[in-house]
Amino acid sequence: MYLADEAWPELEEYFAEESLALVPLGSTEQHGPHLPESTDHTIAEAFAREAAERTGFLCTPTVNVGVSPHHRQFPGTMWVDPPEFRDYVESFTRNLAYHGIDRVVFVNAHGGNVQHLREVGRRVRDDGTAYAVEWMWDESIPELVDEVFEQNGPHGGPKETAMMQYLDGEHVHDDRLEAARDGGVASVADADTVKHGSRTFYDAIDNTDNGVLGDQTDATAEKGERLFEAASDQLVQLCEWLDDQRFEDLLPKDRV
Amino acid sequence: MYLADEAWPELEEYFAEESLALVPLGSTEQHGPHLPESTDHTIAEAFAREAAERTGFLCTPTVNVGVSPHHRQFPGTMWVDPPEFRDYVESFTRNLAYHGIDRVVFVNAHGGNVQHLREVGRRVRDDGTAYAVEWMWDESIPELVDEVFEQNGPHGGPKETAMMQYLDGEHVHDDRLEAARDGGVASVADADTVKHGSRTFYDAIDNTDNGVLGDQTDATAEKGERLFEAASDQLVQLCEWLDDQRFEDLLPKDRV
Amino acid sequence: MYLADEAWPELEEYFAEESLALVPLGSTEQHGPHLPESTDHTIAEAFAREAAERTGFLCTPTVNVGVSPHHRQFPGTMWVDPPEFRDYVESFTRNLAYHGIDRVVFVNAHGGNVQHLREVGRRVRDDGTAYAVEWMWDESIPELVDEVFEQNGPHGGPKETAMMQYLDGEHVHDDRLEAARDGGVASVADADTVKHGSRTFYDAIDNTDNGVLGDQTDATAEKGERLFEAASDQLVQLCEWLDDQRFEDLLPKDRV
Amino acid sequence: MYLADEAWPELEEYFAEESLALVPLGSTEQHGPHLPESTDHTIAEAFAREAAERTGFLCTPTVNVGVSPHHRQFPGTMWVDPPEFRDYVESFTRNLAYHGIDRVVFVNAHGGNVQHLREVGRRVRDDGTAYAVEWMWDESIPELVDEVFEQNGPHGGPKETAMMQYLDGEHVHDDRLEAARDGGVASVADADTVKHGSRTFYDAIDNTDNGVLGDQTDATAEKGERLFEAASDQLVQLCEWLDDQRFEDLLPKDRV
Amino acid sequence: MYLADEAWPELEEYFAEESLALVPLGSTEQHGPHLPESTDHTIAEAFAREAAERTGFLCTPTVNVGVSPHHRQFPGTMWVDPPEFRDYVESFTRNLAYHGIDRVVFVNAHGGNVQHLREVGRRVRDDGTAYAVEWMWDESIPELVDEVFEQNGPHGGPKETAMMQYLDGEHVHDDRLEAARDGGVASVADADTVKHGSRTFYDAIDNTDNGVLGDQTDATAEKGERLFEAASDQLVQLCEWLDDQRFEDLLPKDRV
Amino acid sequence: MYLADEAWPELEEYFAEESLALVPLGSTEQHGPHLPESTDHTIAEAFAREAAERTGFLCTPTVNVGVSPHHRQFPGTMWVDPPEFRDYVESFTRNLAYHGIDRVVFVNAHGGNVQHLREVGRRVRDDGTAYAVEWMWDESIPELVDEVFEQNGPHGGPKETAMMQYLDGEHVHDDRLEAARDGGVASVADADTVKHGSRTFYDAIDNTDNGVLGDQTDATAEKGERLFEAASDQLVQLCEWLDDQRFEDLLPKDRV
Repeated sequence: MYLADEAWPELEEYFAEESLALVPLGSTEQHGPHLPESTDHTIAEAFAREAAERTGFLCTPTVNVGVSPHHRQFPGTMWVDPPEFRDYVESFTRNLAYHGIDRVVFVNAHGGNVQHLREVGRRVRDDGTAYAVEWMWDESIPELVDEVFEQNGPHGGPKETAMMQYLDGEHVHDDRLEAARDGGVASVADADTVKHGSRTFYDAIDNTDNGVLGDQTDATAEKGERLFEAASDQLVQLCEWLDDQRFEDLLPKDRV
Repeated sequence: MYLADEAWPELEEYFAEESLALVPLGSTEQHGPHLPESTDHTIAEAFAREAAERTGFLCTPTVNVGVSPHHRQFPGTMWVDPPEFRDYVESFTRNLAYHGIDRVVFVNAHGGNVQHLREVGRRVRDDGTAYAVEWMWDESIPELVDEVFEQNGPHGGPKETAMMQYLDGEHVHDDRLEAARDGGVASVADADTVKHGSRTFYDAIDNTDNGVLGDQTDATAEKGERLFEAASDQLVQLCEWLDDQRFEDLLPKDRV
Repeated sequence: MYLADEAWPELEEYFAEESLALVPLGSTEQHGPHLPESTDHTIAEAFAREAAERTGFLCTPTVNVGVSPHHRQFPGTMWVDPPEFRDYVESFTRNLAYHGIDRVVFVNAHGGNVQHLREVGRRVRDDGTAYAVEWMWDESIPELVDEVFEQNGPHGGPKETAMMQYLDGEHVHDDRLEAARDGGVASVADADTVKHGSRTFYDAIDNTDNGVLGDQTDATAEKGERLFEAASDQLVQLCEWLDDQRFEDLLPKDRV
Repeated sequence: MYLADEAWPELEEYFAEESLALVPLGSTEQHGPHLPESTDHTIAEAFAREAAERTGFLCTPTVNVGVSPHHRQFPGTMWVDPPEFRDYVESFTRNLAYHGIDRVVFVNAHGGNVQHLREVGRRVRDDGTAYAVEWMWDESIPELVDEVFEQNGPHGGPKETAMMQYLDGEHVHDDRLEAARDGGVASVADADTVKHGSRTFYDAIDNTDNGVLGDQTDATAEKGERLFEAASDQLVQLCEWLDDQRFEDLLPKDRV
Repeated sequence: MYLADEAWPELEEYFAEESLALVPLGSTEQHGPHLPESTDHTIAEAFAREAAERTGFLCTPTVNVGVSPHHRQFPGTMWVDPPEFRDYVESFTRNLAYHGIDRVVFVNAHGGNVQHLREVGRRVRDDGTAYAVEWMWDESIPELVDEVFEQNGPHGGPKETAMMQYLDGEHVHDDRLEAARDGGVASVADADTVKHGSRTFYDAIDNTDNGVLGDQTDATAEKGERLFEAASDQLVQLCEWLDDQRFEDLLPKDRV
Repeated sequence: MYLADEAWPELEEYFAEESLALVPLGSTEQHGPHLPESTDHTIAEAFAREAAERTGFLCTPTVNVGVSPHHRQFPGTMWVDPPEFRDYVESFTRNLAYHGIDRVVFVNAHGGNVQHLREVGRRVRDDGTAYAVEWMWDESIPELVDEVFEQNGPHGGPKETAMMQYLDGEHVHDDRLEAARDGGVASVADADTVKHGSRTFYDAIDNTDNGVLGDQTDATAEKGERLFEAASDQLVQLCEWLDDQRFEDLLPKDRV
């Protein structure tokens, strides 16, 4: 059920029965010369909508702009600074609880949002408002991702490329896949990102000239579909597991 | 040009030439028994995308959740509290300026956002970062709106109903228009909202049982289209006027 | 009863019986070449004191500086930025509730404060602390104002001029009324404040060279007195209405 | 020159010549059974207006409510919490600097404001905006105060009583002076406020049953006048000293 | 009992029996040419650990950096700005209460922290979380300090010098005591710190060329020891007094 | 060079030559039944002091309390909430820059601090104040850690146990190592911490009954020493690398 398409009487019925919501969050940021800047929010929304359709749980509209200052040197990257992002997400999450939502899945497709969503999750859990967890599709099927691609490419790599070929192929520049690979960092191991145990870089541009890593020519829409199906399964199972819990079991345990 | 569909090389070209962006903002909130809760963000996005298409200016993704605590008693209304909304919008507006955007049109379709967008507009203007203005479609064609409808219906009324019939008719419950009218407040004048000069109400539910006002049966998709065309013209002209200004003329004047 | 003139034993008696307070708020800002910068706080204080005297309700001291950045180009305008203003007002309003005050009238005479007082009103209402409403004198008698003046002059116009001639004539420069009119914008309709539906101005100086609008020569102390009496009546009635309500009826309604 | 009584053309002239402002700040709080709750803001305003009159420097309107949570148990005490108070004062002080004010005297008559005004003073000085100092009348004439009263009474004691008898005798309950003394703590030394080096009390009521200390029967309006004249002299001299300084000499020194 | 040296089972036993904690706080800031910058946190920690040892109460680790912007012109001074300091201390104090701590002694050795610790103390007391008091050793034995030194030297003077000679003599430059005295301000009365009742200085360097006041040659480790013993006695008594109180008696009193 | 032990003249010399500082940060939190709660700050301080000694760079005092809400169910865990922790660290880091420090190594030994130190690092870098990086000892020698222990034990495991046996053996309960292992989670793989790709736990107690993981009986002081030497080498090299960079090369790159 997609919240935004419904009128309030239908939603009244939902809240009478259910207390779970899927909230898609992504970013609008550079994903190399070949992918649209929508990549992360398109993917997040696709997964959340798919799981909502399969399960009947509620999906909210998408938060399209996230925490992406590390991509700002590449044109078009939009971002919100971390404190404002956290507070914005916290505010609407608390307000969802007004309607009886007490468990939330942040369906996230941007690595830069993870820690902030975890922090928000703690805030709303520790005072007993709601239980919210962060979920990223590739974290749910790590072995399959490793199996499908030679280079388990991170930002703008084959993994995200395949997913976008499947979900929004029209906006993928297939004729730039080689250029993406050759102008970026084909092997993540080659990116010199850690010095003596310290991550000494802050921005994507510190590591990669065109903003992406991995071998994009390894991507196909078919691989994207396979990953999408598999990860959607995982998300559905997460929702069902969450729905099965008693709310008190999701809250913080007592002191030892 | 829709930012999210482009890869960074195309956006690099845009920023080399232009410095204006359209930012759609709406809400996800009850609009009566007949309209989807997407109403305000669907409308905002439609106008911003249309104007971007006609002019070639950049349109960003949409902010789907706004300041709607006054509708919270009706199921499904999502909202962000005002300080967090302002800070979130301010943050990404400032960050747009990093790419050279120095004039922004907040294409807004939710009355509850107006004052907050104006406040953000002042913040970013007063320190010389950018010039941002708030625009609502119905404010741009007040006479036409009056002409088209007997009751210039506000929230969830014929005006918004017609617009949604045109833009997203699939999610309008046409079979509930009479119920919407009869269960709400047909005539705004009948809503007892001011006492001795003071607005003594805070929530929509204080005035209307089903969340809407006006006569929804007066709406048609054709009327919606006519309004959409007329207001889009206005938005295009606003963009062109803004683009013609010198940036220094948009900044605060000096002291007397 | 004026809080500041009383010692605590008298106030103890008040709080034992009553739970309403009038709080005057204005601004210190330019009001053209002819009016003192006190205009808005002088007017607010006069109304609040008058209503307190007529009803016996409590009037607090005045907040003299408000949200006036839009007048800053004119010398002497003092202002507090919106977040700080809201937080300051919220803080003392909450603290009034410590003494049992659960309903507050913000007797306001500055348009720039309105939305911020409404926002504070929501904050303290939504958590059940108190019910506070904003009131402006001219909003309470719109028809009379229209009747008395040809041009229902806004900032620094005949309306405020007449009121100050009545309340503090000593500080009105009656010999500058023509200059005020001729150096400003006589007809509000002439002020080019909206472009294609967007308010494109932020500061008073964007519209008016001397800071004021309307025809000041239309003002007299007699008109001021008439308006003062009529609006005071309204404020008294508002207080009585408010006092008659049960507190629970002033709080937010439950969910549908 | 009193800012609020002037129109902007007169203030334009002032700012062309001068850069100093006197800002009165007090509190609205219990001062025992005999004094009005205005005591601190009445005194602050009287000194600031007097010094402005004698010197020609600018005096702004008064901040009537300050940091008084420690008096809240006594009816009528109004207060703003410290962070909000500091931010409010900082905001208008910075905004005064817009007009060219670069030195400010906070004419303060409430002990509870001192540290907060000092903190604000540091904020605006350390970034080079303005130099602001806090001044309290009794700190400027400690020997005279000691000479005039047997008990150099603090809060609501003979010192403040005499001052109010002189400045606003109408609102002093002269018939309660003995009750004030007998119901409070006549000798400060008797107030058991420190334990083993730690101030273990937080609220006035922890020490005194009626809110005041000292022997109020020792006060007369004549004593009040004498103190007022002497302290006004000090304030005038402070303004003149401040006016004589070069702004760069008032700013923080460089690193060693 | 020193919290940091214990494992959680031992601490579990403590919280089962006791509800008091000693929290040492100091600063890291210049103390003249002869004393190490640790002076204030070394002293604070020594007292807190000593009292914990004598009484069995819990001592936490030390907050080493405090509010010292007024010493920043001297190399090495570290500081945290006041709002951040207050919020940091408030946060861990509230969190101590999670374990059942409801009374806290801030064992403080830096004058610049006092008002901020008092403000935090009010915050946690006023909402009933805990009762926290600030304690400084020299405030607990004022007569002895006066007796031991000719000049009751403040910052970096004989008092602190003697204490450090006793506690950490290795890091005291005994060969610079005369230089410290001669390069600073030997007599506090000579420091011209107040003008017409106003403290017109903000930074230590405004008064003293080498950062210190008083006659350092008057200090010996023996004097330090004597003071340490006497003040430790006071701190022990404060803890015992605090432990004897009923929690409800430490909370704010009701309204009159 | 340890800042706190020096007087300002020595520090003046340092800042004249150098611009790097090591800042140790840890936590005070449960580390199982066998380790003291100081574990993380003891380790952080040891590394920072060691590297300072070997290189001559400046080491500041330690931040002893960090972000540890996830350990709060175990007695004695102290913590500061994330926003306050970040702001506190940001404040003193910015203030270090006042003295000319433009590169900082956060020598951190608590996993819960990592993301917050990275966030602070971005804040101070993005506005050009300083370049700060986070470093954890075990991240600098991952292969050696894997080689030394069968189970590369995380929180309170053999790795931290060995380090504490070496650095502060007196406070390690060697007689509880078996109990630590048997009462916790010997194999990390057994801790069921992720469900369908989502980290569904928030607190340590959700996974482990006694707060620790891994096989503590595998730890010895000798292993601790070996790790300490190896990681100290890494830290020294990081400092030297950092010192060799030009400041402009450490700042954010320009836009593409």
